[in-house]
Amino acid sequence: MSTQPALVALDWGTTSLRAYLVARDGAVTNRIERPLGILNVPQGDFARAFRDCVGPWLAAHPGLPALASGMIGSRQGWREAAYVACPAGIDALAGALLEVDAGAEFRIVPGVSVVDGDGVPDVMRGEETQIFGLDAADGVAVLPGTHSKWVLVEGGRITRFATFMTGEAFAAMSGHTILGRLMTGTGHDEDGFARGVAHGGRDAAGRGGLLHRLFGARTLGLFERVPGHALHSYLSGLLIGAEIAEARAWLGRPPAEVAVIGAPALARSYAAALGAGGITARIAPADAAARGACAIARRAGLVA
Amino acid sequence: MSTQPALVALDWGTTSLRAYLVARDGAVTNRIERPLGILNVPQGDFARAFRDCVGPWLAAHPGLPALASGMIGSRQGWREAAYVACPAGIDALAGALLEVDAGAEFRIVPGVSVVDGDGVPDVMRGEETQIFGLDAADGVAVLPGTHSKWVLVEGGRITRFATFMTGEAFAAMSGHTILGRLMTGTGHDEDGFARGVAHGGRDAAGRGGLLHRLFGARTLGLFERVPGHALHSYLSGLLIGAEIAEARAWLGRPPAEVAVIGAPALARSYAAALGAGGITARIAPADAAARGACAIARRAGLVA
Repeated sequence: MSTQPALVALDWGTTSLRAYLVARDGAVTNRIERPLGILNVPQGDFARAFRDCVGPWLAAHPGLPALASGMIGSRQGWREAAYVACPAGIDALAGALLEVDAGAEFRIVPGVSVVDGDGVPDVMRGEETQIFGLDAADGVAVLPGTHSKWVLVEGGRITRFATFMTGEAFAAMSGHTILGRLMTGTGHDEDGFARGVAHGGRDAAGRGGLLHRLFGARTLGLFERVPGHALHSYLSGLLIGAEIAEARAWLGRPPAEVAVIGAPALARSYAAALGAGGITARIAPADAAARGACAIARRAGLVA
Repeated sequence: MSTQPALVALDWGTTSLRAYLVARDGAVTNRIERPLGILNVPQGDFARAFRDCVGPWLAAHPGLPALASGMIGSRQGWREAAYVACPAGIDALAGALLEVDAGAEFRIVPGVSVVDGDGVPDVMRGEETQIFGLDAADGVAVLPGTHSKWVLVEGGRITRFATFMTGEAFAAMSGHTILGRLMTGTGHDEDGFARGVAHGGRDAAGRGGLLHRLFGARTLGLFERVPGHALHSYLSGLLIGAEIAEARAWLGRPPAEVAVIGAPALARSYAAALGAGGITARIAPADAAARGACAIARRAGLVA
């Protein structure tokens, strides 16, 4: 039957470990989330963290292969999996899985690298697996977060991508600059967010760019043009609006539709910000990482 | 004789109080710097902080007027001096001095406000006084720092200005994000700084803007393309280069020359970054605040 477990998929990042029991058809039949990100694994004993997390699944289904994506394949992870260079399709990823001696069949999906128009390298680990978990990978996808990624997929291959420090810049600017002082709350304020998006994404000619506009989050508060409880959302919108404007310029032409892969609340915010700019957001199904791991495992012959 | 004291000029900001004994011709004959910024004045007793700092000068020269500029005139300061709106010349400032009961002749120079192309207010307090301390105010000036200001002066009046959060963004991003982790030192590295300036100021078409380029400070470190000891300077250059690019767009046309008003090391960095973009930097004389206060006091009839 199709719900017979065929794979243990692991989305193993910096702060958390998400494990999925996946059926042959890609359906997730069980899931576990642990705060065992690669920086939090006791004594760096990844094999033990792996067993502690999914041991019962392996005991119930002996010989089940495991496939992990994310920072687990970085220098700070279990073992470093070399990046696959763009353009990178699912065949290239499936052909470069890194086997690790884990007391079970355990492989790591390699990350993907690219060199941008300035000659500066960019990298991803984990997002490539989520991309191939989309129903139709071709097109433009955004994976919002601490380090937001925009990815262009053409002909089933990731042809290029770019990382934007939006989430981390937001945390640093709201938590460690004067901008946080006038904020009287952190709840989502729809109007404040929309005003920030509009301001951050506006054509910059003759108006100053992001470094100038950030200061506007101070003066709009000082002059009580944006209320204190809305400033947090205003700043978030300002940065997300700036990211979308940068990404549009990076793409060369605005996409009609963008797939958004992320946690529900953040995905909704991005959908709203994209919609304000006339771009349709297609919220990706949950568990894209598990679905992508299953697709890669199938291509590698690990899952029939 | 010309060295006879004619004014006590105070550059009273958020973190420090700088007091100058100024002669009729604008020459500074004595100076004191205390960590008595407006946020550090015990019990908010500004009158006492003023007396403790310059009491001996006032005792030696009874009746000497004092003129203060900076955040002392803000809501958090001694008394709030309303902003003068752009275009703002020295006459408007001299005509709007705020008298404060300080047990001595004490006046505060008002700040200046403007509304930018996005309809967002911008403000300065203290920089207006430094501007009018330049030998020739007309032209473009930059006052680098936590909140860097670019100021356009035409016909002796500040016609518009814009604030850029460069310094504070640098502190937040280097101190509170992943970018700091690969930095192995904070000393100035000329090559790293120059590479950052070039990268931050490059035409962004199709290449992503600041939010993307910030991530380059991570990957260039990871790939050992910029050594760890140079990453601090690289990030500083990246942000200053981005600020200059934003300011050029804000001005509409690149200026041939820019006056740089700031602490010597930072002014030198800005001069280097401006020079890389073909703009001549004219480093302003020290004590621009004292010279500007003297010019405003003269216009107000406080100094003969």
